[in-house]
Amino acid sequence: MGPEFQRIEAFVAAARASPRAPAGPGDDAAVMTRVRGETCVTVDAVVEGVHFRRATGRLEDVGHKALAVNLSDLAAMGARPRWALVALGVPRGFSIREARALGAGFGSLARESGTALVGGNVTRAPGLSLTVTVGGQVARGGALLRSGARRGDVVWVSGTLGDARLGLALLERPGGPAARRLQRHPRLARAALMRQRRPSARLALGRALVGLASACIDLSDGLVQDAGHLAAASGVALHLALEALPCSAALVAAYPRPADRARMAASGGEDYELLFTTPASRAPAVARLARRLGLPLTLIGQVRRGRGVHPIGARAGPLRGFDHLA
Amino acid sequence: MGPEFQRIEAFVAAARASPRAPAGPGDDAAVMTRVRGETCVTVDAVVEGVHFRRATGRLEDVGHKALAVNLSDLAAMGARPRWALVALGVPRGFSIREARALGAGFGSLARESGTALVGGNVTRAPGLSLTVTVGGQVARGGALLRSGARRGDVVWVSGTLGDARLGLALLERPGGPAARRLQRHPRLARAALMRQRRPSARLALGRALVGLASACIDLSDGLVQDAGHLAAASGVALHLALEALPCSAALVAAYPRPADRARMAASGGEDYELLFTTPASRAPAVARLARRLGLPLTLIGQVRRGRGVHPIGARAGPLRGFDHLA
Repeated sequence: MGPEFQRIEAFVAAARASPRAPAGPGDDAAVMTRVRGETCVTVDAVVEGVHFRRATGRLEDVGHKALAVNLSDLAAMGARPRWALVALGVPRGFSIREARALGAGFGSLARESGTALVGGNVTRAPGLSLTVTVGGQVARGGALLRSGARRGDVVWVSGTLGDARLGLALLERPGGPAARRLQRHPRLARAALMRQRRPSARLALGRALVGLASACIDLSDGLVQDAGHLAAASGVALHLALEALPCSAALVAAYPRPADRARMAASGGEDYELLFTTPASRAPAVARLARRLGLPLTLIGQVRRGRGVHPIGARAGPLRGFDHLA
Repeated sequence: MGPEFQRIEAFVAAARASPRAPAGPGDDAAVMTRVRGETCVTVDAVVEGVHFRRATGRLEDVGHKALAVNLSDLAAMGARPRWALVALGVPRGFSIREARALGAGFGSLARESGTALVGGNVTRAPGLSLTVTVGGQVARGGALLRSGARRGDVVWVSGTLGDARLGLALLERPGGPAARRLQRHPRLARAALMRQRRPSARLALGRALVGLASACIDLSDGLVQDAGHLAAASGVALHLALEALPCSAALVAAYPRPADRARMAASGGEDYELLFTTPASRAPAVARLARRLGLPLTLIGQVRRGRGVHPIGARAGPLRGFDHLA
């Protein structure tokens, strides 16, 4: 246990945000007092060889991403992050320097998002893994659920889609066609890589949607799949303009054929944007919110009777993706 | 993701206790309402090849143990369990039947302890792992910490020590000396195996110690090591009768030499008993508690000025292990 304690200490020293809990790492459990309103808790794991490779991933990025994917779940609930627990699985030969790098990436996002690291655990494991549990609070209005979408509502998505999948393509196939097309656009390539390596959780958006959105989900597995979860939980059908989803300049440059980038945007995964529904009458409020946050919020579809996710062709229906900031 | 969803569904269907949270597994995060008093949260992982082997461990037991080790941390805080999150790492070829077995072991203990499975996550991983986060509540009096032991207090331990380590020896060396000596005592051998495979968390004891114990820790890494954590957190020295720790009939039969079983009891690990301190004046209350719970609570030492853990020889000091039930 000696070396393992040293590693957890190196991780914690680098990761620890200003402690806000009476008993932080070190006791049998962390203690949280003065909890008001609803508490949301969620867990997510980042595993070597599955979610990242040591060859292409920097450990600072891995630490950041392990927390970011959890914060994204809190964002989708409209919750403000409060605390995190980290379970580290470390392979033989994992060094204190590596533990520190992992902790530094975790810690910078923890501080930025106001998340206190309150406890954790370290075990030996065949490969490196970080399993992060986060807790957050929804002060008033109640948590956003996937199950609240109603017939007649409209469907929105934040930001741009497909960039994280493009970033993965750049990492995995540095000589592939997407990478070649972005060679003349290094700034766009870097932006796509950052979406893959250091995703942002839409925490401010999520909190602002409490009382405005009827349902919400974060996009981790790709728009179509996650929209399917929301549709199933709400017992409705989502009709989406899949051929006109919001795309970044990087995606357009990397995939000049509209059908290619539509596919990336619709099922790329790891975007960590929010998909949400509102009554159609609240569209002006969503537009104002987009301006206030400086974040594109694009109307991409409608909620109808039925089940599942249905494409609206670019020419077939009245709905087109549009960006309230454009 | 298809097969992974099926596996998590099989696990959840088998594991799920009566849901007590407004939004259970299925939303981006679980939602807990009406949280009173302090909330304790903790995380622990059980990893194939480190904490169990598929060859010698049954998956029902692995599911049970993954929850039990976390409940033991809550017990040490004096908390009542409320909810759990499970992050499953599953290797290729892990079947739905296996997920169900894992869930059944988890679920029976979840129901018995009143712990609601409120969410989770499944990822592919090189080996099977369960990372369990639990949340519990301390209603009044405040959580038990490791840091409250004061000079003049006395030190207690629950149950018997070394049995889980004996159980491990029986599993790992079925032809070894301990196993040979227990051949004529199959009931004792089974009891030791159960301590290893299906440890109990001392939840009722932990809750009863709120307002009585000055400090508390659960014994996962062995008495000496965990006593060292309590001593360090409290800034005191613990003087313990390490040669006269409470031992079971199984341990006595397996290790006839007192020095051998003293070593097992002092540093065996995985006992999941509670080590706690009280003012010496509260000894009668501890004795009454032992009778009420039907659980041995043995006085094993004293808190003194200084630091670290110090042995009191069987002949050297005034303290002898004794069992209030004996």
